Amino acid sequence: MRVLGIDPGLTRCGVGVVDGTVGRPLGLVAAGAIRTPADDELPARLLGVENGVQQWLDEHRPDAVAVERVFAQNNLSTVMGTAQASAIAIACAARRGLPVALHTPSEVKAAITGSGRADKAQVGTMVARLLNLDGPPRPADAADAVALAICHIWRGGAQQRVARAQQEFARKVELARQARGR
Amino acid sequence: MRVLGIDPGLTRCGVGVVDGTVGRPLGLVAAGAIRTPADDELPARLLGVENGVQQWLDEHRPDAVAVERVFAQNNLSTVMGTAQASAIAIACAARRGLPVALHTPSEVKAAITGSGRADKAQVGTMVARLLNLDGPPRPADAADAVALAICHIWRGGAQQRVARAQQEFARKVELARQARGR
Repeated sequence: MRVLGIDPGLTRCGVGVVDGTVGRPLGLVAAGAIRTPADDELPARLLGVENGVQQWLDEHRPDAVAVERVFAQNNLSTVMGTAQASAIAIACAARRGLPVALHTPSEVKAAITGSGRADKAQVGTMVARLLNLDGPPRPADAADAVALAICHIWRGGAQQRVARAQQEFARKVELARQARGR
Repeated sequence: MRVLGIDPGLTRCGVGVVDGTVGRPLGLVAAGAIRTPADDELPARLLGVENGVQQWLDEHRPDAVAVERVFAQNNLSTVMGTAQASAIAIACAARRGLPVALHTPSEVKAAITGSGRADKAQVGTMVARLLNLDGPPRPADAADAVALAICHIWRGGAQQRVARAQQEFARKVELARQARGR
């Protein structure tokens, strides 16, 4: 499964592509940041984010996209731009029929480090370790985007296992019902 | 000049198209709301807003688009959806090369009623009066979108008059300079 993680932002939108499945080593495909000039008008910046996300989707053809869920409680001065960049990214993926998942920062931290309160350095260290890199991807927004992609691969895997276990259980219940009916 | 006003929102995105120039009677072309189901996932809702805005742009071919400027200080529970819907609307217009202007709620109220602190009822009353309607467009979001469009026509006109006056002044200064030089 190939996942594009997106850490939304207008000034720097982190992007990271990871290949992997639960229980197998992960592979970093690419990581970077889409930037738009702070002195451009908002319409031009939103189009800049849109064009950047389209290029990453075209080039890496992910199976799913994971975007950081934005909360209004975050830094008020940047939260509007973050929310707007996330909307553009989500729409780009959804327009292509790709599944889009939203993960909170604490879900990502918990998936990568075991603690929802881990700091950025700890997340970066674990991203580097999990991907067998010398150091975390740069800039920091790229590392966050890669962490999102890893979180999605693992959480998606866990959710699939739960779904499979539920199907198996339902099948056994049905078999038992049929056995009683006979 | 034909302006599409957009009062962004995920549940109800108000839209209103007005024809007009400064100093001439205004004409309402159409008003309504783009709705997306509250229990749909965010990606589907954003695409719903996008498709709706595209339809209004296709059908009414405005010369400019005016979108309400969203502030993080507004109602925190809805501000994220409002910011995201506004990003989608702005990108739709910018992608077509249309000029996009952002006006604050108090700029709109001041333009329509003379007071930046006017309430919704007062704005609705003035919208109806200015467009020669029996009552304000429904739902309320449609009336707000129409008010945005009127604000844009008038502010754009005022800005054009200021720009023209400045050009005229600069021309006279230049003529005076040339006269002194002779």
